[in-house]
Amino acid sequence: MISKADRTKQFIIEKMAPIFNRKGYASTSLNDMITATGLTKGSIYGNFENKDEVALAAFDYNFQCVVSHIRNKMEARSSIIDKLLVYPETYRNYLQLPFLQGGCPVLNTAIEADDTHPQLNAKAASAIQFWRGSMERQLKEGIASGEIKSDTNIDEVCTVIMSLIQGGVMQTKVTGNAIALNSGMDYLERLLKNLKQ
Amino acid sequence: MISKADRTKQFIIEKMAPIFNRKGYASTSLNDMITATGLTKGSIYGNFENKDEVALAAFDYNFQCVVSHIRNKMEARSSIIDKLLVYPETYRNYLQLPFLQGGCPVLNTAIEADDTHPQLNAKAASAIQFWRGSMERQLKEGIASGEIKSDTNIDEVCTVIMSLIQGGVMQTKVTGNAIALNSGMDYLERLLKNLKQ
Repeated sequence: MISKADRTKQFIIEKMAPIFNRKGYASTSLNDMITATGLTKGSIYGNFENKDEVALAAFDYNFQCVVSHIRNKMEARSSIIDKLLVYPETYRNYLQLPFLQGGCPVLNTAIEADDTHPQLNAKAASAIQFWRGSMERQLKEGIASGEIKSDTNIDEVCTVIMSLIQGGVMQTKVTGNAIALNSGMDYLERLLKNLKQ
Repeated sequence: MISKADRTKQFIIEKMAPIFNRKGYASTSLNDMITATGLTKGSIYGNFENKDEVALAAFDYNFQCVVSHIRNKMEARSSIIDKLLVYPETYRNYLQLPFLQGGCPVLNTAIEADDTHPQLNAKAASAIQFWRGSMERQLKEGIASGEIKSDTNIDEVCTVIMSLIQGGVMQTKVTGNAIALNSGMDYLERLLKNLKQ
């Protein structure tokens, strides 16, 4: 059974996750937490040690939202290339997904935390390694089954997929011009289709 | 003649530019400014209205360092493709360049400022548009002279160059693993060489 304390914790995490993603760790204040949750300082800090603990839980929540969304879409497809095409399809329309409206949580956290917050940086690093590992496994599976060209450079393809998504989202978000995201996702779709044996 | 006030302003900007790039705007405090410059609060705020004004000047300074470095290297080369190859050569070794040790100032500022700081966001947006515009002109010149394939998709190539650099620097910085940067720059070098007519 889920206790009342667990429900309150989960409520705080769900309310704060999009705010941490949009504003960043350093810019999100106790006042933001009070406003977003409608709870008192005492109630928030009765459930979490400090802002750090909320931020770390919020990152996990944001990342899980992205992972679940992508995994669900991939599970409905059979070929590896079709599964990988979920990436450009998802990020092309990232503004329509509530958990991506503040941008990619991995990129946002990685950039903010790399020199200032070792625990958040470790979470962003794990997320990037998790993402890379998952694509590596898919590419290897596709090569083993004969779907994907056997001379595919797995490290390179993983880097390029992640870079095109991160770069496209970032350039479009900052300039307000969709050209970067659209042209990046067009390129990525062609690249993925060209992996075919 | 440069006044003493201008020299002090410039001194503050040069000392603070790498710190704003490394720590971000929100995490850099007045205490950081006092420690880095050895000046008093009164002296700092005698030269700048507020932290905002220092941060905006620091961004301009960081961006100019990158632009000058790349422009100088490009000017020593004659073909457009050789000029564009300055990008992967520079970013492959970004940790050796003092003004890039905190990461790409455009990416760092873009990610931090997009939802929180309209003036800094506008600077990051201009920097991205300046960078894109400069590559567009080079690619058009290369097509006009017959050096570069005439069916090159200029929007796409500009997006992909920027994304590979931003993604590679970010992934390597956060995970501490050079594989992303090296494989991304290998791919970018091949992509640029393949633009040749």
